[in-house]
Amino acid sequence: MADIIIDFERRARCGVEEAIFCASKSTDQIEKIVKLGEQQQTSLLFTRLEKSKYALLSLQSQQKLDYCATSRTAILNGVVEIPQVSNSPIAIVSGGSSDASVCQEVLRTLNYHGIGATLYEDVGVSALWRLTNILDELNQAKLIIAVAGMEAALPTVLSGLISQPIIAVPTSVGYGVSADGQLALNACLGSCAAGLMTVNIDNGFGAACAAIKMINSFTPQ
Amino acid sequence: MADIIIDFERRARCGVEEAIFCASKSTDQIEKIVKLGEQQQTSLLFTRLEKSKYALLSLQSQQKLDYCATSRTAILNGVVEIPQVSNSPIAIVSGGSSDASVCQEVLRTLNYHGIGATLYEDVGVSALWRLTNILDELNQAKLIIAVAGMEAALPTVLSGLISQPIIAVPTSVGYGVSADGQLALNACLGSCAAGLMTVNIDNGFGAACAAIKMINSFTPQ
Amino acid sequence: MADIIIDFERRARCGVEEAIFCASKSTDQIEKIVKLGEQQQTSLLFTRLEKSKYALLSLQSQQKLDYCATSRTAILNGVVEIPQVSNSPIAIVSGGSSDASVCQEVLRTLNYHGIGATLYEDVGVSALWRLTNILDELNQAKLIIAVAGMEAALPTVLSGLISQPIIAVPTSVGYGVSADGQLALNACLGSCAAGLMTVNIDNGFGAACAAIKMINSFTPQ
Amino acid sequence: MADIIIDFERRARCGVEEAIFCASKSTDQIEKIVKLGEQQQTSLLFTRLEKSKYALLSLQSQQKLDYCATSRTAILNGVVEIPQVSNSPIAIVSGGSSDASVCQEVLRTLNYHGIGATLYEDVGVSALWRLTNILDELNQAKLIIAVAGMEAALPTVLSGLISQPIIAVPTSVGYGVSADGQLALNACLGSCAAGLMTVNIDNGFGAACAAIKMINSFTPQ
Amino acid sequence: MADIIIDFERRARCGVEEAIFCASKSTDQIEKIVKLGEQQQTSLLFTRLEKSKYALLSLQSQQKLDYCATSRTAILNGVVEIPQVSNSPIAIVSGGSSDASVCQEVLRTLNYHGIGATLYEDVGVSALWRLTNILDELNQAKLIIAVAGMEAALPTVLSGLISQPIIAVPTSVGYGVSADGQLALNACLGSCAAGLMTVNIDNGFGAACAAIKMINSFTPQ
Amino acid sequence: MADIIIDFERRARCGVEEAIFCASKSTDQIEKIVKLGEQQQTSLLFTRLEKSKYALLSLQSQQKLDYCATSRTAILNGVVEIPQVSNSPIAIVSGGSSDASVCQEVLRTLNYHGIGATLYEDVGVSALWRLTNILDELNQAKLIIAVAGMEAALPTVLSGLISQPIIAVPTSVGYGVSADGQLALNACLGSCAAGLMTVNIDNGFGAACAAIKMINSFTPQ
Amino acid sequence: MADIIIDFERRARCGVEEAIFCASKSTDQIEKIVKLGEQQQTSLLFTRLEKSKYALLSLQSQQKLDYCATSRTAILNGVVEIPQVSNSPIAIVSGGSSDASVCQEVLRTLNYHGIGATLYEDVGVSALWRLTNILDELNQAKLIIAVAGMEAALPTVLSGLISQPIIAVPTSVGYGVSADGQLALNACLGSCAAGLMTVNIDNGFGAACAAIKMINSFTPQ
Amino acid sequence: MADIIIDFERRARCGVEEAIFCASKSTDQIEKIVKLGEQQQTSLLFTRLEKSKYALLSLQSQQKLDYCATSRTAILNGVVEIPQVSNSPIAIVSGGSSDASVCQEVLRTLNYHGIGATLYEDVGVSALWRLTNILDELNQAKLIIAVAGMEAALPTVLSGLISQPIIAVPTSVGYGVSADGQLALNACLGSCAAGLMTVNIDNGFGAACAAIKMINSFTPQ
Repeated sequence: MADIIIDFERRARCGVEEAIFCASKSTDQIEKIVKLGEQQQTSLLFTRLEKSKYALLSLQSQQKLDYCATSRTAILNGVVEIPQVSNSPIAIVSGGSSDASVCQEVLRTLNYHGIGATLYEDVGVSALWRLTNILDELNQAKLIIAVAGMEAALPTVLSGLISQPIIAVPTSVGYGVSADGQLALNACLGSCAAGLMTVNIDNGFGAACAAIKMINSFTPQ
Repeated sequence: MADIIIDFERRARCGVEEAIFCASKSTDQIEKIVKLGEQQQTSLLFTRLEKSKYALLSLQSQQKLDYCATSRTAILNGVVEIPQVSNSPIAIVSGGSSDASVCQEVLRTLNYHGIGATLYEDVGVSALWRLTNILDELNQAKLIIAVAGMEAALPTVLSGLISQPIIAVPTSVGYGVSADGQLALNACLGSCAAGLMTVNIDNGFGAACAAIKMINSFTPQ
Repeated sequence: MADIIIDFERRARCGVEEAIFCASKSTDQIEKIVKLGEQQQTSLLFTRLEKSKYALLSLQSQQKLDYCATSRTAILNGVVEIPQVSNSPIAIVSGGSSDASVCQEVLRTLNYHGIGATLYEDVGVSALWRLTNILDELNQAKLIIAVAGMEAALPTVLSGLISQPIIAVPTSVGYGVSADGQLALNACLGSCAAGLMTVNIDNGFGAACAAIKMINSFTPQ
Repeated sequence: MADIIIDFERRARCGVEEAIFCASKSTDQIEKIVKLGEQQQTSLLFTRLEKSKYALLSLQSQQKLDYCATSRTAILNGVVEIPQVSNSPIAIVSGGSSDASVCQEVLRTLNYHGIGATLYEDVGVSALWRLTNILDELNQAKLIIAVAGMEAALPTVLSGLISQPIIAVPTSVGYGVSADGQLALNACLGSCAAGLMTVNIDNGFGAACAAIKMINSFTPQ
Repeated sequence: MADIIIDFERRARCGVEEAIFCASKSTDQIEKIVKLGEQQQTSLLFTRLEKSKYALLSLQSQQKLDYCATSRTAILNGVVEIPQVSNSPIAIVSGGSSDASVCQEVLRTLNYHGIGATLYEDVGVSALWRLTNILDELNQAKLIIAVAGMEAALPTVLSGLISQPIIAVPTSVGYGVSADGQLALNACLGSCAAGLMTVNIDNGFGAACAAIKMINSFTPQ
Repeated sequence: MADIIIDFERRARCGVEEAIFCASKSTDQIEKIVKLGEQQQTSLLFTRLEKSKYALLSLQSQQKLDYCATSRTAILNGVVEIPQVSNSPIAIVSGGSSDASVCQEVLRTLNYHGIGATLYEDVGVSALWRLTNILDELNQAKLIIAVAGMEAALPTVLSGLISQPIIAVPTSVGYGVSADGQLALNACLGSCAAGLMTVNIDNGFGAACAAIKMINSFTPQ
Repeated sequence: MADIIIDFERRARCGVEEAIFCASKSTDQIEKIVKLGEQQQTSLLFTRLEKSKYALLSLQSQQKLDYCATSRTAILNGVVEIPQVSNSPIAIVSGGSSDASVCQEVLRTLNYHGIGATLYEDVGVSALWRLTNILDELNQAKLIIAVAGMEAALPTVLSGLISQPIIAVPTSVGYGVSADGQLALNACLGSCAAGLMTVNIDNGFGAACAAIKMINSFTPQ
Repeated sequence: MADIIIDFERRARCGVEEAIFCASKSTDQIEKIVKLGEQQQTSLLFTRLEKSKYALLSLQSQQKLDYCATSRTAILNGVVEIPQVSNSPIAIVSGGSSDASVCQEVLRTLNYHGIGATLYEDVGVSALWRLTNILDELNQAKLIIAVAGMEAALPTVLSGLISQPIIAVPTSVGYGVSADGQLALNACLGSCAAGLMTVNIDNGFGAACAAIKMINSFTPQ
C-alpha cells in the first residue's frame, strides 16, 4: 500500500481542504507530499512546519512553498494573502502579542480558502480600554475568533459585550498552572458566558476551518 | 447589596438570555428568582434543576414552572416546545440513548429561544449504517449539533462526511477512562477532523446558545 | 496523650485564632471541643460544619453555638455579626449567587475577629455593567476579596480596573472542566493580571485570615 | 552480580523473545549486550534505539546490527524482513502517515519472529472511503492491528465494520489535548465498540508480541 | 426519529452482540428495550445494571430477565450458564475475591455467546504459591483473561510464566493512589512483560468480547 | 475453584499476617471468611470495615469480632490492645485530631501483632510548641510513624529534628487542592528532608506492617 | 491594527506597571518594544528573558537594558537596585539556594517600583535553627514573601511562628512528585496554616506586585 | 544574608548528612559550595550533578571531586567505595539494567556514610527465575532496597516471598503511561503487599538515607 494518501476531494466533501500536519512527519514524507501536489497541480496547505524542519527541506521544495515562520505554515500553489479591510466577515481578536503565531495561522488558513479577515491583536482584559476601543468595529463582523492564553478571560468578557458567535482559541502562552494551555482551554470551555465554542490549544487552523464551514453553510450561494 | 441580580438585558446585548444555573443554588435562592421573574413578567429558563431539588420547591413555584426531568430544565412563562420538522435549520445527532438528557437540554433551549430543530438519537459509529441512513436529511440542515459520550468518535466521523459546521457536545456517559466525560471532551477537541467546535461536558445549553448566535448573526433580518 | 490540643495562644502568636475544621471530625470530637471551650471560657470558631452533622450534636451543644447553615460555620461565645457599612476597609465581591456559601464564610470569619466588611454579590463579568456600577464604592476599600467560580474571570478583570490588593477565592461552582473548582483556582493563579493573591478552593476562612493579618500588620496601633 | 542478565529462554517460555529496550540504556550497556549476543551466537532485537544513540555506538557494533531509523529498531543475527503478501494472517492499519514509526516497529517485530503481515497506512476516518476501499482485504486477515493517534477513532470505526479481533495501538501523534498520546490511548480503552484490546502508547513492539502469542496459541502445530 | 435503535445485526457483522449498557439509561429506557427484545423474539444482554435500578423495573420486566447481582448483568431469552470444565479454551484468573464482580461479568458474557470458561479466583501475586499451583491447568487453555486491581502485578507475572495470549482486565479495587482503577490500568499497559492486551477498568464485558472474536477468527469453522 | 483462598502461612513467610481488606468485599464474602477463620481456629484482622457494612453482618459474626468503628478494623480471636507505655519502641505522631482514624488503624495493627506503641495526637506544625514539647519522648523510640493530612509538613519538620527512621502516613484530611490526600502523599514523597519513607494515603495498616518487619528484622531473636 | 499595544497608564490605574513577559515573544517583538519604550521615554521591566534570548537581541538593545541573568529580568531606564537594610517593610525568605532565581525576580521588581526589601536565603525547615535565628528580624517587617520549592513547608511553618501576612511563592525546584512546582503550589494552597496567600509557580514578579499594591493601599500618603 | 548556608550539624542531629542537590543550582553556586567544604575541611556529597554540568566546573573543582557519571554524584573528601560482600546488611535489588543510575546513587550514598551493601541488578519479574535464584542470599540481609521502573511489580513480588523490610525506589524508566515514573511510584504505594515503604521517583539518595537511619536506630551501639 502507498504510505501517503492525500484526500484531494475533501474540500468538495467537507468544505475545507486537507492540510498537511507536519509536526510528526519526517522531511522525507514532506518532500514526497510536495512532489505529489506538484504532480497533481493542486494547491496544498502545510501546518506546524517549524522553521528548523523547513530549513532541512531541499532547496527545490523550499522555493515552491510560500513559507511563514510566525504561523509555521507553508502554501503550495495557493492564495497567500487577502488584504485586511475593516468590514471583513471575520474579526480575529487576541489577548497579547505572544499569541501572534496562532493568530497568523488563523489568518493564513482563512485567506488560503479565499476568505478575508481583520486582525485585532493585544487587546486583553487586563486593560479593558483596549477592548472597548474596538467594540464598534467588532460589531460589524459576523463572527469573532478570540485567541487568548493564560487565564483566557478575553472570550468570556467579549461574550458578555456582543451578540456575535465566538470561536475561542486557547493558546499555550503562560507557565506554571497554565500547563501549556490547558488552563486557557478549560477557561474557554468552563466559561460562565453562554455559547462560546472552543477548539484545541493553539489550533488556529481548526478555528479557521470552523469559520469557513459556518460562512459556507449560512451564506446564500 | 442584593444577593441576586438578574441580567434582564442579556438577550438584547448578547443574543441569548441569562439562564438560571441551579446546580449550586439553594431552593431558597431558586424560589426568590421565580418570584423575581413573576414580578418582572418576564420569561426565565432554569438549567441543571435536578428532579429532587425541583420537588423541594414550593407547590406554587412548581406550578408556575414547566419542568422536564429528562433535560433537568424548567421554563417560566416561555415557549416550551416547537414541533420537530424535517427541514429545521439545526439537526441534533446523538451517539446513544444514554445521551438523551443532554439532547433534550439542547432542544428545549433552542425551542425556548424560538428556534426549531430535529433530533436524531442513537446513531453512534459502532453501527455506521444508522448514520449513513440519515446523511441526506442531515445535509439539509445548516448546522449540526453532535452529542456523544465515551470515545465520542461520532463528531469526527460526521465531519468527514458532510460540509456543515458541527458543534460537538461531549457527554459524561461511560466509565473508567471516560473520566466523567473528559475523554469525550478531549476526543472532540483533539479530533483529526478539521473545524469541530466544542463546548463543556454535558453542556447542551451552551451548544444551543452558540447555535442561536450563529443563526442570528448569519441570517438576514 | 490527649487526642485534642487546642492552640489557645494562636491569636496572640499568629494574629488569627485557630478554627475547628469540622469536615473530618466526628461528632464526638466536636462535642468534646465545645466542652473544652466552655471550660476555658474562650470563644471558638467552627468551620465546614455541615447542617447534617450539626443536627447530630447534642441539643446542649447546639444551643451554645451560633450556627449559620449557609456558611457552614458555628461560633461559641464570639462576635457574630458586624453591621455592613459602605466605608468598610474590606469589600467582598462575588461572581454569582452560587458563591453565597463562601462569601458568608469570609464575612463571618472577619466579623468574628472584629473586622467589618461590605458584601457585593452577583457581579460577574458576563454582565460587566454590574461591576462598573460599584467601582466607585470598591475604590473606597483598602482590600478586595474576590470570590468566583467557573472560569473565574472576575478577579482578573477587577485587577485591571482598580489598584487595591486583591485576594482571590476560587469556588467549586461549575461542572465538567470546572473540576470542583480546579479551573477557577488555576484561572486566579495563572491570571495575566499581576499581583493577584490566591487561596485554596472555597477557602473563605483562609481569605479572611489573610485579610486580618494584613490589616493588623499595616494599621498603626 | 552481573549488571545485565539476558533472559535467553524467554521465547521458549513465553512465546516471544526478550527485546532490548534501549531508551534508558547507556551506549556502554548496549555495546555490552551486542557482544553478549555475539558470544552466545543468538539473535537479538533492540527497540527504541534512537538514530542519535545508534550513531554513538562503535563502528563494529553498528555493522553487526541491521538498523532501521523509522522504527528505531536494530536486529542482530535475525530475520529482517518478510515480503508483504495480500493474504497475510495479520493486517496492520494506520490512521495517518505520521504513524509510520509505530507501524514499522510492529512489522519489524513480527517479521523478526517469522510472521508476515500486510501494512495499510493513512486510512484514517476523516476520509472513510480510504477505509471502505480496503475492507475486503482486511476481512481476509485473522487479526487486525490498528495504529492511530489524535482522537484515534479508527479502531472504533473498524470494530463496527468487521468481526476480527483488533489490537489498538494508540500513538503520540497530536498536540494540546492529545497529551502525547494519552487521548488516543483513552479513546481506544473507552471505545463504545466492544472487544478492542489496547497496548501502551506507541507500543508497536507489544502489539506485535500479543499477535505472535495469539497466532502461536490458536494455530495447530 | 426513534430514540432507541438496537443494532440487531451486530453479531453477524462484528462477531459479538450489542449489549445494553444500563449505567446511564433511565428505567423507562430499559423497560422499552426489554419490550423491543420481546417483540423481536431476540436475546439481549444487559450490563452495568445495578441491583437498585433492577429493583425499580416493572415486575414483568424483572421476571423476563435472568438477573445476576454480582456481575450486574441481566439476560433476556439467552444462554445463562455453561458448566465449568477444566479444559475450557479460556481461563479467567483473578487477583483477589474483591474482583468477583468483574470475573462474573466476563464469565456470563462468554457463556451468553456460547463459550465455556474456567474461573480461578484469588490467586494474586502476594502469595505466589496460589498461582504456581494452577500453572499446569492454565497451560491447557488457549487464552488467559487476567483480572486484577490495586497494583495489578498478576498479568505481568503470569506473562513471564506462560506463553498464551493474555487479556488484562484492571479493576477499581483499591484506594488512594489506586484512583478507582487507574493504577491497575496503567500497570497493565506499562508492564515490562511484552504482549499484554488491556481493556478499560472493570470492563469484563469487553474482555469477553475480545476473547470471543479471537476464538471465532482463529478456530476453523 | 474456591473463590476465597486465605494465605494462612503469610506471617511465617512474610512476617505479617494477611489482612482481610473489606472495602470491596460483599457481606457474604466477609461472613464466609469469618467462618473460615473460626473453622481453622486462627486469628484474623479485618481492615476498612465501615460501620454500616459491619452492621449488615449476622449477629453471630458481629459477636465473634472485636470491632472498632474509629479505625474501621475488626479482630477475630486476636490480641486487641496492648497498654501504651512511654518507652515503646514505636511512637505514632499525628498532625491533627482529624487523623484519628488512621492513627487507630496503625495502633490496632501493631497491637494485633504483639507490638506496643505510644500515640501522640494533634501535634501539627502550625503550633510548633506542641511538637517540641514531646521531642525528648520521641527520641526514646526506635521508629516514628508520622500521620498527617493537608500539606503534611509534620514528617518533614520532624525529620529535621530527630535521627530516627520515620514512616510517613499521608491522610485524606483536607479539601480542594488536598485532593483526597494526594497533596499530603506528594508532600511526604517530595520532602526536602532526606530519608522519609511513605505509604499509600490513609494506609495505617501498611505503615504498621512496615514497622513490624523492621523490628522483626533488626531485633536479635 | 498595531500588533503590540503597551498599557502605559497601568501604574496609575492598577498601582503596578505592565511588565513585558518575554517567554513567548520573538526577539523581533522584544526589539520593537525596547524601541517603543525609548520613543516614549518611559521605563520598562522585562521578565522571563532567558540569557540565550537576550544574547540574540541587537547590541544596541542589549546596551540599553540592565540585564540580570539570575532573575531573567531586564530594565529599561528604571531604578535597578535599592540597598538592602535590616528594617525594610518587606522580608523575602527562601527555602534553599536553588530558589535564587525567583528571589531575585521578587527583589528586582520591588526595587524597580521603588520599594526596598531584605533577602534571607537558604533557611528551609529541614534545619529549623536557620529559621529561628532570623525570627526577630522577620518580626520587624510588615510583610513576608516566602519562596520555597519541593514540599514547601517553609510558609506553613513561618505562618505558625509570626503574625505578619505572608505571600507564598512556590518554585519549580524538585523532581518526580514535585511535578515542576505543582507540589509546592498545592502545599501552599492546602496548608493547615490559616491565611497564606499564594501566587503561580515561580511567579516572583506577581508576588512583588501584590506586595506593592498592599503597601500602596495601606500606607497613608 | 549569605545566600548559601550549609547545615554542617545535620549528621549529628538527623543521622544523615545534608547533600548538595545540584539539579537547580548554577555552576557558580556549586563552585562556591566546593570552596566552602574545602575551607571547613569537611566531606560533602553532591547529587543530581549531570555530566554536562560537572564539565562546566573549574578544573580545580573537578579534581577535588570524586565524580561518578552513572549515579550523577560527586564526593568531596569522603569515603567513595566499600567493597561488596555477600553478607552485607543491605541488599539492593533492581528490575533491569536501565535502573543502574538509581542503584549506583543508593550504593554511593550508603558507602559514603560508611555502610556496605550488595547489589543485585536485572532481576525483574518478567523472568522470575532470576529472582528466585538469589532469594537465599537476599534472606541474609536485614533490609532490601528494591529499585524498579515501568509497572514496578518487583517490590510487590519480593514482599510476598521474604520477611525483611523493603524500601521501594520507583524509577522513571518506561514511556507512555509510565509517565516519567509516576506509574512505578503508584504501583509501589498501591501494592497489595503489606508493608512496602516508598520514596520519590529516582530517589536513590533518599532510600539510602532511610536505610542508614534504620540501621543506626536499631543497631546497638
